[in-house]
Amino acid sequence: MQKLYEIKNPEFLSSMSIEQLKELCDEIRTFLIESVSKTGGHLAPNLGVVELTVAMHRVFSSPYDKIIFDVGHQAYTHKILTGRAKYFDKLRKYKGLCGYPKSSESVHDIWETGHSSTSISAAAGFVYARDYLNEKYHVVAMIGDGSLTGGMAYEALNHLGQSNKKVIVILNDNKMSISRNVGAMTNMLNKMRLSRKYNKAKNIYLNVINKEKHMFNLAKRVRDGIKSFFLQNNIFEEMGFEYYGPIDGHDLPTLIHTFNNVKAIDKPVLIHAITQKGKGYPYAEEDTEGLWHGVSPFDISSGKSIKENKEKLKSWSSIISEAVTRLAKDDDKIVAITPAMKNGSALQIFEKSFPDRLIDVGIAEQHAITFAGGLAKNNMKPFVAIYSTFLQRAYDQVSHDLARQNLPVVVGVDRAGLVDGDGDTHQGIFDVAFLRHIPNTMVMMPKDAKEAYNLLFTAFKNKKLSFIRYPRGNTIMGDINRHVFENLEIGSWTKEREGTELIFITYGPSVFYLMDLCENNQLNATIINARFIKPLDQDMLEELLKTQKPIIVFEEVVKIGGLNSAILEYAQSKGLNTHHIYSLAIDDQFVEQGDRTLIYQDLKLDEASILSFIKKIKGENKDA
Amino acid sequence: MQKLYEIKNPEFLSSMSIEQLKELCDEIRTFLIESVSKTGGHLAPNLGVVELTVAMHRVFSSPYDKIIFDVGHQAYTHKILTGRAKYFDKLRKYKGLCGYPKSSESVHDIWETGHSSTSISAAAGFVYARDYLNEKYHVVAMIGDGSLTGGMAYEALNHLGQSNKKVIVILNDNKMSISRNVGAMTNMLNKMRLSRKYNKAKNIYLNVINKEKHMFNLAKRVRDGIKSFFLQNNIFEEMGFEYYGPIDGHDLPTLIHTFNNVKAIDKPVLIHAITQKGKGYPYAEEDTEGLWHGVSPFDISSGKSIKENKEKLKSWSSIISEAVTRLAKDDDKIVAITPAMKNGSALQIFEKSFPDRLIDVGIAEQHAITFAGGLAKNNMKPFVAIYSTFLQRAYDQVSHDLARQNLPVVVGVDRAGLVDGDGDTHQGIFDVAFLRHIPNTMVMMPKDAKEAYNLLFTAFKNKKLSFIRYPRGNTIMGDINRHVFENLEIGSWTKEREGTELIFITYGPSVFYLMDLCENNQLNATIINARFIKPLDQDMLEELLKTQKPIIVFEEVVKIGGLNSAILEYAQSKGLNTHHIYSLAIDDQFVEQGDRTLIYQDLKLDEASILSFIKKIKGENKDA
Repeated sequence: MQKLYEIKNPEFLSSMSIEQLKELCDEIRTFLIESVSKTGGHLAPNLGVVELTVAMHRVFSSPYDKIIFDVGHQAYTHKILTGRAKYFDKLRKYKGLCGYPKSSESVHDIWETGHSSTSISAAAGFVYARDYLNEKYHVVAMIGDGSLTGGMAYEALNHLGQSNKKVIVILNDNKMSISRNVGAMTNMLNKMRLSRKYNKAKNIYLNVINKEKHMFNLAKRVRDGIKSFFLQNNIFEEMGFEYYGPIDGHDLPTLIHTFNNVKAIDKPVLIHAITQKGKGYPYAEEDTEGLWHGVSPFDISSGKSIKENKEKLKSWSSIISEAVTRLAKDDDKIVAITPAMKNGSALQIFEKSFPDRLIDVGIAEQHAITFAGGLAKNNMKPFVAIYSTFLQRAYDQVSHDLARQNLPVVVGVDRAGLVDGDGDTHQGIFDVAFLRHIPNTMVMMPKDAKEAYNLLFTAFKNKKLSFIRYPRGNTIMGDINRHVFENLEIGSWTKEREGTELIFITYGPSVFYLMDLCENNQLNATIINARFIKPLDQDMLEELLKTQKPIIVFEEVVKIGGLNSAILEYAQSKGLNTHHIYSLAIDDQFVEQGDRTLIYQDLKLDEASILSFIKKIKGENKDA
Repeated sequence: MQKLYEIKNPEFLSSMSIEQLKELCDEIRTFLIESVSKTGGHLAPNLGVVELTVAMHRVFSSPYDKIIFDVGHQAYTHKILTGRAKYFDKLRKYKGLCGYPKSSESVHDIWETGHSSTSISAAAGFVYARDYLNEKYHVVAMIGDGSLTGGMAYEALNHLGQSNKKVIVILNDNKMSISRNVGAMTNMLNKMRLSRKYNKAKNIYLNVINKEKHMFNLAKRVRDGIKSFFLQNNIFEEMGFEYYGPIDGHDLPTLIHTFNNVKAIDKPVLIHAITQKGKGYPYAEEDTEGLWHGVSPFDISSGKSIKENKEKLKSWSSIISEAVTRLAKDDDKIVAITPAMKNGSALQIFEKSFPDRLIDVGIAEQHAITFAGGLAKNNMKPFVAIYSTFLQRAYDQVSHDLARQNLPVVVGVDRAGLVDGDGDTHQGIFDVAFLRHIPNTMVMMPKDAKEAYNLLFTAFKNKKLSFIRYPRGNTIMGDINRHVFENLEIGSWTKEREGTELIFITYGPSVFYLMDLCENNQLNATIINARFIKPLDQDMLEELLKTQKPIIVFEEVVKIGGLNSAILEYAQSKGLNTHHIYSLAIDDQFVEQGDRTLIYQDLKLDEASILSFIKKIKGENKDA
């Protein structure tokens, strides 16, 4: 293992024999399993691409050649080969190694990702720039079959395929997105996998051009002749790519041979590599549900998660899924939709009760939202669970298709707020700002499980386009199973604590964070649970504003356009003063990865910062 | 023509002979040309689908069967056949007939569109709902080959194709999006068009199943047998659709025959119809640039646009395109990108000077933005022109790919603000709200051509991710050709008029609107040109706020999250009072089509409303 720590850059690979490379792959796998078992992180995707990544760095000269990882959660081997093994003990931790490519970490991370299906678009930009500037480097994009279901990838293939530009797309086909992949593309890839004859014909061709470059045209003609008689074009060829595959994505000699050969081809190339997600760790290899995609620390021999005893805690996603499942028992019009995040959004719970009423549309947020709109238009009651950060992909569909047509879809905005290890590409801190200005919408956030149940009930009952935010992580569940659903008044806030000196307005679990803060520090503060971020509780707000007491609006989202802005806008519309309203939220910036407690300190949202902020306010008020 | 006015619904079509239907098509064409020549509107797309639409309504029973139009600008014949010919004199006018499907107009408009590539997603929702609720109706989506380049359409095909659900997609293939279509899909469709043999084999099959339903399986087997020997699968078949075509989209008997036949097929079907955009009007038929796609009133015999004499006026798009062209002459790193809107964004001007530096990526806003990011990462200076409303499609790419990586792309936000005839699906009134909260961005709007030149220059020079908004329509050009570019101070506002009683803060051409208002009504008002919406001119703003004079923030965007909110947020951060700040902008609603003057009255942004608002403010201030 020591060897891995000593790696500075991938140059050493060029002098290694195939046997040595295989040993290296074994070492990397062992390292990945051991390291991720301690820190948590993306395991199965990385185990699947060890040989692919080693072969890429053997054949291509990063950073001169440009290697772009789609999504980027599979870049661990790349990080090891570019001198970052030593940082894996702080993988996905505050100020630690990022779980995705990160330009500030390494010159080898030439394009940052996190969201899926962007790599081919980026690669298109790279090759256009390269050719325009008369540079000669190779551009390689590695994309999974899951990411190929995202429409953006297709837009880029459509553009690149007819460009005739030299680019290499490596399709890492493990039949999975996070869990088993869906959609017609999957069927197409299956067919390709089965077409062994085709593969061999292609290999012959590759050998020919390798040995005799001037035979290129002849070989091409021979190959095209063969194909037109015996073989069918596949979608990639139809789109203008030279297709090579399927090849075994764990077979180093074949990978190196293929990569070396395609270097000579002056047009778009797609290499179809078949890999096994989780390769080398039996538990992960056998997983078809995506449970080993991203993991928390685990015991290597048993495969069991190492968790503290959190008996009464349950994930927010589970709470929401259970609530929707209960509602669906009494209403057969309710169906659930996920864009390839069934387990992430705990919808396997819903599926267990209603296997035919859960629809996984693949990584396709745009389609998920408009599809739900089509259902709603026909008297169905769709629930769509989407991570806050991925809902960004469907902003237009939310506005143009749902809101404009006033279609009653209930959207579960999962992973709202800070997301810990996933970092800046995944922070759910923009949704309040990007949803609040869309007409005909309700935006809500429950403080606890019971309120989540009631908000969901209210959303379905009132048939309005509704967004219910809930955070990553766990919360106390309480005795919710026999909870009687309650129809909440639209826009109603609640007073959670009564005080005389100042007023906190907040929403979601921040209610409890501030309750604790007040209790621990004997703050004489009122706490308002603004469970409806839109519409506002105008009566209560007006009453609060008129007290002229300091009001602190606390939110785990960006300050610009948040609830605080809504309150300012409302006060303005009523001609009320705002000098006693204060905002505690996230300044105008992207937020890095890390434990909420540490990030809160950076953002000045931690207890000490809040207390000193209050002290400052009081000082001001005394001065006044 | 009288006959067209008398149509109540499409039922009458069922009793007509082919000859009568052909006559009807001729009448509709004549009507469309005459009507649109007077009102303006989408001409060429509608002339292309007359027979397709007549055949659809002949075979399918709307509204029981559901007909969904992608984009929807090609629904004029549908509107005529559903009893709306008499409203065409107010096509796209205030309170008049919408240029797109509109549920409030007719029960036959079962899905509203405006943006492209949504129809197959909606259709998927419809068929899932239908099957779940045990209904039996047909669902038909008509989509152009241009819309197929949008990734969302592919996401939906990917989902529907493996669903085995009964649905009919009609591909209206005219080789165009607005102008000539681009991309690999275009090449694929070309190949299909040329495969006549294939078409015939399919027709045999259709005849067989039509005559003998119980022969279905045998026929299918025969066909599949034939195919595997002689024919190649095309992309739609690979994706799980039964493919029928190509057929002549102007041949009524073939269309009716085909539509009738596919009714019996219990799985996803795609009918590939070849049409001629602009069919029946020679000028439009011969147009490959998309000049007859959407038109203003014109003289039928000469094909010349009927315009008032507006010698000194020039479209904002042209001004921007000319400015970028001039900048590109001195900087060979500047390239321009359009998502299928070359003429709309006047980039034919840029293309004339730099044919190799204009890249049309097709209807693919997501890809356009990230592609530009890839270019920027490699030291190019991309300019992307996108309509404000279509930029909504790329919200995530703006945030995740550009802003997060701090990539210096210059985005021309075309059609910002109200757009007149295109209506609620196209109003550019959300971009300030959805861009302002994204970190690392600059958002700007010039008041005139000179300022547009300077803002563009400033954006390229300062290498920041920049959004320059400009409206639909024309403005006075002035003597700009010899203008010397000026690097403006980032965030600097200007004082356009000095007054003592109140202060207007606004941006874009609204500056002149308010200047005129003040002059015409002897208002003693200061007018501030907030040409940087982000970042703010903090110094000037602080100075203005401290005067305690009434400040009216006037914006042609939604109130929530606009510049007014930015000013409130800033005042709050400085502990300054806001009771003297007022917002005049668009309330929380979608805005219908119509002339700006009329819409302004509805929105209370017209001169009289502003004056009475000011009177009210003065009253308040007196009371105080």
